[in-house]
Amino acid sequence: MKFCTLCGNAVHIAIPTDDNRERHICKACGEIHYHNPKNVVGTIPLWENKILLCRRAIEPRKNYWTLPAGFLELHETSAEGAVRETLEETGAIVDVGALFTILNVPHIGQIHWFYIAQMTSAKFSPFTSESTEVALFDEADIPWDEIAFLTVKTALKNFFADRHAGKDLLQPGLIPHLTDLRPVTS
Amino acid sequence: MKFCTLCGNAVHIAIPTDDNRERHICKACGEIHYHNPKNVVGTIPLWENKILLCRRAIEPRKNYWTLPAGFLELHETSAEGAVRETLEETGAIVDVGALFTILNVPHIGQIHWFYIAQMTSAKFSPFTSESTEVALFDEADIPWDEIAFLTVKTALKNFFADRHAGKDLLQPGLIPHLTDLRPVTS
Repeated sequence: MKFCTLCGNAVHIAIPTDDNRERHICKACGEIHYHNPKNVVGTIPLWENKILLCRRAIEPRKNYWTLPAGFLELHETSAEGAVRETLEETGAIVDVGALFTILNVPHIGQIHWFYIAQMTSAKFSPFTSESTEVALFDEADIPWDEIAFLTVKTALKNFFADRHAGKDLLQPGLIPHLTDLRPVTS
Repeated sequence: MKFCTLCGNAVHIAIPTDDNRERHICKACGEIHYHNPKNVVGTIPLWENKILLCRRAIEPRKNYWTLPAGFLELHETSAEGAVRETLEETGAIVDVGALFTILNVPHIGQIHWFYIAQMTSAKFSPFTSESTEVALFDEADIPWDEIAFLTVKTALKNFFADRHAGKDLLQPGLIPHLTDLRPVTS
């Protein structure tokens, strides 16, 4: 951020009075501009024993496989956003179920949410404007070495672990995994 | 938003190519500016059988009682933010426990999170820069008609209902209530 959204003049970075963090402050009008973490919402789309994944058509992590997910928009709920992103990226219509996992990713200012979702039919698009390929995977066929993001890999690992443990993954309102991901420093 | 954060020139509102929503777009450099829901994180601070509430020193809803909560900052997790806000608004140091509830509030572009938290001692500040009064309340003494926000009232109602039902509210990772709040239209 270089310029004020309200008056168009230059901002500088300083700690405002009664605050303890550096903010972007307008040199002309004094407006303080805050930046906050964004929510990325998506689903684990299920059809029979399979999971729907999509291969990213865009950066970051282009050509890697991912669960359908994207930035939550204003005026929609987290579940509505997850359903919308699933449709946009895979062409699949889903019934959203339990919130399965929330993964804080503080070093990039994001929180990733994944809901369990049942596909309402076997129908999906083989590709979309956001995915070069969309496909259903058995657990044995998940391309673990080509998963786009650590949050997605974590969600999938936890999903299969819970399924093997016989947990009822459709139970509403249960978050079995609330995880914070941090940069790998070792 | 009237001006571009990158170049300081005027923005206009239009739907970008390959998008279906109106965005703020810079007329000069073409940058698309996205706006997303913000997370408000807080706690239900417990000491013995009581709950710690604070009376707001600032707008909106100045002078009304609330649970300690505020905007999640970059580079912190939802739980870290909840603990920080509790300290800032009440002076109390808490051990954060289970995530109790997430309340989508899409019409104002916010998501409110409340964690169960145990105060580490009976110590808190009778007032802070953000609260004109801080006090422990028995359930019978909660000032229901002076609660600042519907999300706070909802969280408190659900908390007492669950406590009466004998639920283990300290169990980690359980979200008994995932609620979407919408504007009251009737």
